[in-house]
Amino acid sequence: MAVYTDITDSELEQFLLDFELGRALVFKGVAEGVENSNFMLETPAGRFFLTVYERRVDPADLPFFLGLLQWLGAHDFPSAIPVADREGRILKSIRDKPAALVTFLPGLSVRRPGVAHCRQAGEGLARLHHAANGYPGRRRNNLGHQAWLSLFEPLAHEADTLKPGLARTIFADIAMLARAWPVDLPEGVIHADFFPDNVFFTDGAFAGAIDFYFAAWDALAYDLAVALNAWCFEPDGSFNITAARALIAGYERRRPLNVAEKSALPLLAHGAAMRFFLTRLNDWRATPAGSLVKPHDPLEYERKLAVHRAGISLFDTAA
Amino acid sequence: MAVYTDITDSELEQFLLDFELGRALVFKGVAEGVENSNFMLETPAGRFFLTVYERRVDPADLPFFLGLLQWLGAHDFPSAIPVADREGRILKSIRDKPAALVTFLPGLSVRRPGVAHCRQAGEGLARLHHAANGYPGRRRNNLGHQAWLSLFEPLAHEADTLKPGLARTIFADIAMLARAWPVDLPEGVIHADFFPDNVFFTDGAFAGAIDFYFAAWDALAYDLAVALNAWCFEPDGSFNITAARALIAGYERRRPLNVAEKSALPLLAHGAAMRFFLTRLNDWRATPAGSLVKPHDPLEYERKLAVHRAGISLFDTAA
Repeated sequence: MAVYTDITDSELEQFLLDFELGRALVFKGVAEGVENSNFMLETPAGRFFLTVYERRVDPADLPFFLGLLQWLGAHDFPSAIPVADREGRILKSIRDKPAALVTFLPGLSVRRPGVAHCRQAGEGLARLHHAANGYPGRRRNNLGHQAWLSLFEPLAHEADTLKPGLARTIFADIAMLARAWPVDLPEGVIHADFFPDNVFFTDGAFAGAIDFYFAAWDALAYDLAVALNAWCFEPDGSFNITAARALIAGYERRRPLNVAEKSALPLLAHGAAMRFFLTRLNDWRATPAGSLVKPHDPLEYERKLAVHRAGISLFDTAA
Repeated sequence: MAVYTDITDSELEQFLLDFELGRALVFKGVAEGVENSNFMLETPAGRFFLTVYERRVDPADLPFFLGLLQWLGAHDFPSAIPVADREGRILKSIRDKPAALVTFLPGLSVRRPGVAHCRQAGEGLARLHHAANGYPGRRRNNLGHQAWLSLFEPLAHEADTLKPGLARTIFADIAMLARAWPVDLPEGVIHADFFPDNVFFTDGAFAGAIDFYFAAWDALAYDLAVALNAWCFEPDGSFNITAARALIAGYERRRPLNVAEKSALPLLAHGAAMRFFLTRLNDWRATPAGSLVKPHDPLEYERKLAVHRAGISLFDTAA
C-alpha cells in the first residue's frame, strides 16, 4: 500500500532505454497494490504502471503471474497487460529488485460495494475464469486448504491471546474442512484475492481486476467463495444474503455452477474465511506494537468464520 | 510525502457533485507534495489533482495560496490551476479538512539536476516572478530573517547535541545576518521553496512548479538564493559554481538582477541556508526516535551554512 522503493529520474531514464516508449512525461509513486512499490508512468506512447516487487511475492512466481496477465490481455479480459522491452522481456529489474511495466488500467475500486456492484463483480470473476481457460502456466495454491493446519500450528497461541479458547475452535474447523473438502470440482486459474480493492468499475460497470499475485490453480468455485466473504458482509459482521445472491447470479450469467459447486459453496466460503483469518493472524503477530503500518484485523475474519460455522444458505431451497 | 487522509469512493462521488466535471474514472493516492494528502483524479473533463491539507499549512493562508495559483494560471505560468465548483468556490473541504482540486500539471522532477536543469530552473523562477507581479494577495514570510532568532532559541540545545559548539556559531550567524540584511531589494511574491522536487521538466525543459505552500511576499532575489542552495550543491557538500552561474544566468535571461541584488546574493544564500537549517533542526527534534518518517538531515544545511560562512563568489570579479 505504500511506495517502498524510491526510483530516481535517472534510474527511470535508464530503465526506459530498454523499451520503445519514448521518455517519461509523468512519473508518480502511487498508493496501491499489495506490498509492492507502484508508480504511474506516462510517455508519448501512453500510460503505464511500473511495479517493483518487494516482499511477499516470490520472484520464482513472477513468470506465472506476468504470463497470466499477458494471456488475459490477449483473451479479452480487462487487466493490466505487461509491456515487453525491445528484446521481448517482460520481467525486468530495477535497483536489483524484480520489476514489470504494465499498461494502465483505468477504473475505480469501491469501498462499500452495493448489490449492483456484487452482481457486476460476480460476472467479472466468471469472465476472468473463462479468459484464463487454456493458460498453460501452473502454480499450486500454497495458501489452499492443504496448508491451513501447518499455517495455524505456530499461531495457535496467538489465537488464544486474541480470544481465549479460539485455538481449539480453529483446530476443529480445520479438521472438519479437511474431512469435508470436495475433490472433484472444476478447476482452473483463480484470482484468489478478488477483493473490492482489486476490482475496478467505470460508471458502476465492471472495468477489470488487478493484483494477480495470489493467482493459482484451484477450484473455480473457491474463487467465488473468497469473493463472497470479501463482498457480502456488512460492516456490522452480518452476512448480506441479497448481495451474495447477486454475486452468484452475476457469476452464473457467464458461467453456471454445477450441482457439486452449488452444494460445496458454503463449505468453500468457510474455508476461504479460514485462509484469510490465518494470514491476517500471521501478519498481526508479525507487526511490532506501535508500528505505523496497521495490519488487517484478524477478528474480522474470525467473525466470518463464526457465521459460516453457524451455516449460511445461499440458494433457495427449491433450487 | 504520503497519503494521510483516506478518501472513499462515495466521499469522492459526493465531493464531485459540487463540480461540473462528471464522474471519477481514476482516483489514486499519490506520494507527492509537502505534508498534504494528494490524489490523482481523472474524469471525462480531464485530469486533476486533489489535495487535502493536513498539518503545517495554516487554513487561513489557503486563500492566498489558491488565489496565487489562479493568478499564475491566468498569467501564462505553468502550474496547477484551482478548479472552481458550481458556485465558484475553490477552497473546499473533505472529511472536515480543507481541500482543493487543481488541474494536473505534467512533468518530471529531477533528483540530481545538471547545469542545463539549473539554467532552465533559473529561467522558470524568473518567469514565476514576472507572472506573480500584480497579484493582490499578501502574505508575510513567517520563516523570513526576522523569525530566525526566535526560531533558534528553543533549538539551541538541540544544535549543540548535533554538533558541540554549533549553537554559538548559529547565534553569531543570525546576529550577522540581522545586521547585514539588505532592506531595499525589489520585492514581490516568492515561491520560497523552489527545490528540485517542486519543479517539473519535460524533455529537459522547464515545465512548471508546484507546492506553493510557503509562498510569501519577500525580496525576489531571496527566492533565487533559496534555489542556489537547493540546486547547486554536490552530494559531497561542495558548492558547484558552474551550476550556480547557470541558475543565475537562466534567471537573468528573464529578469536581470540589479547591482544591489547581485552584491546581496551571497548573504541572501547564507540566510536561505539558515532558514532551512532551522526548520530541519526543528523537524528533527520533533520526530520520535525510531519513527518510520525520516526528516531531512539538518546537517546537510549546517554544511551549506559553513560554505556560506567561508564566502562564495557568484559573479566574475569583472562583473
